[in-house]
Amino acid sequence: MSDLPKKVDIQEEGPREGFQIETGPINTERKIELIDALSETGLKKIQVASFVNPKRVPGWADADAVIDGFGAKEGIVYHALWLNEKGIERAMQHSDKLTHMGSISTTASETFMKHNTNRGFEINREVQRGQLKLYKKYGIEVRRASLMTAFGCNFEGSVVPETAVERLREILDIAAEEGTDIEILSLADTMGWASPKGIKEVVGKVRETWPDKRVCLHLHDTRGMGVANVYAGMEMGVDLFDSSVAGLGGCPFAALKGAAGNVCTEDVVFLCNELGIETGVDLDKLIEVARLAEDIVDHPLPGSIMHAGSLTQYRGAVAAE
Amino acid sequence: MSDLPKKVDIQEEGPREGFQIETGPINTERKIELIDALSETGLKKIQVASFVNPKRVPGWADADAVIDGFGAKEGIVYHALWLNEKGIERAMQHSDKLTHMGSISTTASETFMKHNTNRGFEINREVQRGQLKLYKKYGIEVRRASLMTAFGCNFEGSVVPETAVERLREILDIAAEEGTDIEILSLADTMGWASPKGIKEVVGKVRETWPDKRVCLHLHDTRGMGVANVYAGMEMGVDLFDSSVAGLGGCPFAALKGAAGNVCTEDVVFLCNELGIETGVDLDKLIEVARLAEDIVDHPLPGSIMHAGSLTQYRGAVAAE
Repeated sequence: MSDLPKKVDIQEEGPREGFQIETGPINTERKIELIDALSETGLKKIQVASFVNPKRVPGWADADAVIDGFGAKEGIVYHALWLNEKGIERAMQHSDKLTHMGSISTTASETFMKHNTNRGFEINREVQRGQLKLYKKYGIEVRRASLMTAFGCNFEGSVVPETAVERLREILDIAAEEGTDIEILSLADTMGWASPKGIKEVVGKVRETWPDKRVCLHLHDTRGMGVANVYAGMEMGVDLFDSSVAGLGGCPFAALKGAAGNVCTEDVVFLCNELGIETGVDLDKLIEVARLAEDIVDHPLPGSIMHAGSLTQYRGAVAAE
Repeated sequence: MSDLPKKVDIQEEGPREGFQIETGPINTERKIELIDALSETGLKKIQVASFVNPKRVPGWADADAVIDGFGAKEGIVYHALWLNEKGIERAMQHSDKLTHMGSISTTASETFMKHNTNRGFEINREVQRGQLKLYKKYGIEVRRASLMTAFGCNFEGSVVPETAVERLREILDIAAEEGTDIEILSLADTMGWASPKGIKEVVGKVRETWPDKRVCLHLHDTRGMGVANVYAGMEMGVDLFDSSVAGLGGCPFAALKGAAGNVCTEDVVFLCNELGIETGVDLDKLIEVARLAEDIVDHPLPGSIMHAGSLTQYRGAVAAE
């Protein structure tokens, strides 16, 4: 296990992911309550809202009010998602609280891209170039390039590492042409195709190709492989993961029945704790937040540790004897 | 990943585990239906019933009727659980269908043993010796020695590999004294304490100590680490796992709130398929059985693949293009 990192950074996406997909209306106050609770756990980066079309995503119609309402805590990066210039402009109104982070993206599967955004690779390259110019216009830093369906796709099947690298290279070239140096390569398992083997192969090829860039894994737990895939990623030295507290969320456009969302933050923190990997997160506090999330959405959420409890109480009892 | 086995054997425990813990009465016919369906999946070993005190485990009051009812299929080993001589005698009435497999057992944690069986290590050694004599009397082969709480215990905390080996050695010595050669060392994560690190450390020490014996992992998914632990075990060369279809079951005496049961058979088979490891099991048939299990117990079961579906349909569509 020599490649396991000593420290892992976790990027919390629960609020944005969760409130995007929930069908019932959720009070703005309760969304704020969740963000404020997350701020007390030691998480250092929290995606708090989505500035998207309220007709398509009614759950984020109150994004402005949520951001006005939560209490920003020193040392934590709060950021939001947007999909177009209108979203950016809305986010820019909250520059007192939000850190604006640009990213460019592509997919390993062109068929998925066409289903998801109605464009092919050729058009997407120009769209990404446009994004970079837009970010420049707004003075937004761009550090991340994302590859969706990085491990497989319902339409095109498994993704070979060479394809993943080729797709990433295309948008990295565009970034370079626009004078942008991408630091983070984010590999997303959009449709829950990844296995530890796929993780090792794709991450291995990406790291071999760009040894100086940092790899981030954005993993869905659709097929129960989420934690095993995080572990396989860490065995490859990956030290940056997106996750959602309690497993909130999921991609509403991936057309998967019973699709689980992102891997659970507290389950990943538990894994790290047990492996002796530092996260800076207080697991027991985070478990309380996961239970709060379940209370807010008012239905069971997929997290395991939040239901079983951590081992702290037992270890504490043993130590006290 | 050079240590991954080429082939893995899966020992199905769903019927026995599941119907033991379910609170509602389940029709004998439906139990039989599940076993018959499992027999069509390619699984080669199925634990079909429990001959235990019907007052303690009312779910198995109909064990005799279930065994009379199912259709034994050539090439599959069907076996039952018992806890005492009375149970053995009941099982012996079904020697036409059942293969009787004796095992001896101990726990890494004496406190758990006292809670679970009201005896300490010293008494347990004599109990195990008595078991071996009993098996000899009935002509029952004994191939397996089990270590419960092999990775940790709510009462005593984490288990160090040296303790696991010491406890196993005690009962292996007794087996040797009784002229019994144990082939399989089964490590059970009774209370959901295992992490990939614990798996690698304990399995590593056990394999180093007894390189000629086969290690079996009996893993609970209490804290969401089940599949990751299976993967870590396979990375150590483990090629024998207990599991439950759909995640049926759980230990009613482990005093864990929200305790998940064994790791799901179909999720393990999916993992193996994705890693290129042979199991002999037809995943899509097994998923249908998992859904049948959910229908029988009439509440959601923890399996992931059974809800998300396998990748076969998508791969098939791609291949057909």
